[in-house]
Amino acid sequence: MSQAVQAVRSKVTGDLYAEVQTFYARQMRRVDALDIEGFADTFTDDGVVVHANGERAQGRERMVAGMRANLPRYRDIAVRHWFDHLLIETDPADEDTLRVSYYTLVTQTDREGKVSFQPTFTVDDVLVRRDGELLTRSRVIHRDTPVELPAS
Amino acid sequence: MSQAVQAVRSKVTGDLYAEVQTFYARQMRRVDALDIEGFADTFTDDGVVVHANGERAQGRERMVAGMRANLPRYRDIAVRHWFDHLLIETDPADEDTLRVSYYTLVTQTDREGKVSFQPTFTVDDVLVRRDGELLTRSRVIHRDTPVELPAS
Amino acid sequence: MSQAVQAVRSKVTGDLYAEVQTFYARQMRRVDALDIEGFADTFTDDGVVVHANGERAQGRERMVAGMRANLPRYRDIAVRHWFDHLLIETDPADEDTLRVSYYTLVTQTDREGKVSFQPTFTVDDVLVRRDGELLTRSRVIHRDTPVELPAS
Repeated sequence: MSQAVQAVRSKVTGDLYAEVQTFYARQMRRVDALDIEGFADTFTDDGVVVHANGERAQGRERMVAGMRANLPRYRDIAVRHWFDHLLIETDPADEDTLRVSYYTLVTQTDREGKVSFQPTFTVDDVLVRRDGELLTRSRVIHRDTPVELPAS
Repeated sequence: MSQAVQAVRSKVTGDLYAEVQTFYARQMRRVDALDIEGFADTFTDDGVVVHANGERAQGRERMVAGMRANLPRYRDIAVRHWFDHLLIETDPADEDTLRVSYYTLVTQTDREGKVSFQPTFTVDDVLVRRDGELLTRSRVIHRDTPVELPAS
Repeated sequence: MSQAVQAVRSKVTGDLYAEVQTFYARQMRRVDALDIEGFADTFTDDGVVVHANGERAQGRERMVAGMRANLPRYRDIAVRHWFDHLLIETDPADEDTLRVSYYTLVTQTDREGKVSFQPTFTVDDVLVRRDGELLTRSRVIHRDTPVELPAS
């Protein structure tokens, strides 16, 4: 197979792009509503999240427990996660597994309407399709840090 | 029809996703340019907007009048509406009516380049396709407010 | 051909929408990583960037030199470019040339995690497809400025 044909074949289809965006739109509504169980349900049973500080939560039970412990920090603020620049990589040998990376901006709006921002993050996910629906199998969250300036 | 098949059928196609995103890209360029009549033309004749404060404007004439009255608040600022996490729901019985919800962040940049933010919003739209082109039939704007913390 | 048919035909397909978004996701990862050569490689050899201040850099060599000169302003900050509201216009006579415009928000996060914002921008690109891959042939960056209020 020519390289040109391979390049074309590895392109993300519009349908897949819309499917992944829709999955995140639903998942983020749940986390932003502090619907912890609903959010955990968007992961596989053995799903894992590695937070930017290195903390790791594997399995829905530990994920839910960790999120419950963090709830007080969301008192009196409306949190929203904004995504951008999705990169979706498909595995030709397994069309039900996707690697997705994206930018994340997190706003926190208080009762007076004042918006503040968490640092920006870049996230690497592995999604799997089970019974036709996407689930997150793993998520690694990287806090964006300054890069070393290249030699000039 | 099996449930799995229904789930697959209700998925948003890439073409529809691109069509809706393109509609909003055009609509927001008009509102951000303070092109009030052009913005109103992206609504149906009987289109309705329910603002976050509960104010309701129905019909293009009232919509235009309300926006004109609000123009002074946009003096010397460049406003931009940013969308994210579109959720598009189609009606199998009527493919020309769509329910769309999305996150909105609104930036206001002054002449010196300083950016400030309005509170974040979540918006629920009903779009209709007329002669092949989408129009907004109704828009309900919700200001994002803190949720009650779930019992731990 | 009727006008309705033309309107339908000029619609952006989901596949094209995903292709363009994926192109920008890759291009922005390079510029945000200060990978100057990698970023320049996403332009055609004669590619041109016209900055918001009117400065113009044509060709990869001048583009790279200009970016190198600007590197010190990115010391100790993580920069991220956020896009929204892509408008993709295709040329029926040349399917390998696209006009794309989009909103841009630029965040700068310092080592402590504090986020600051550049003014917002609207960008007009011409993309070309060469050997199946998109490249930027020209980019004109407009700083968003207040519009004159329409007469009321």
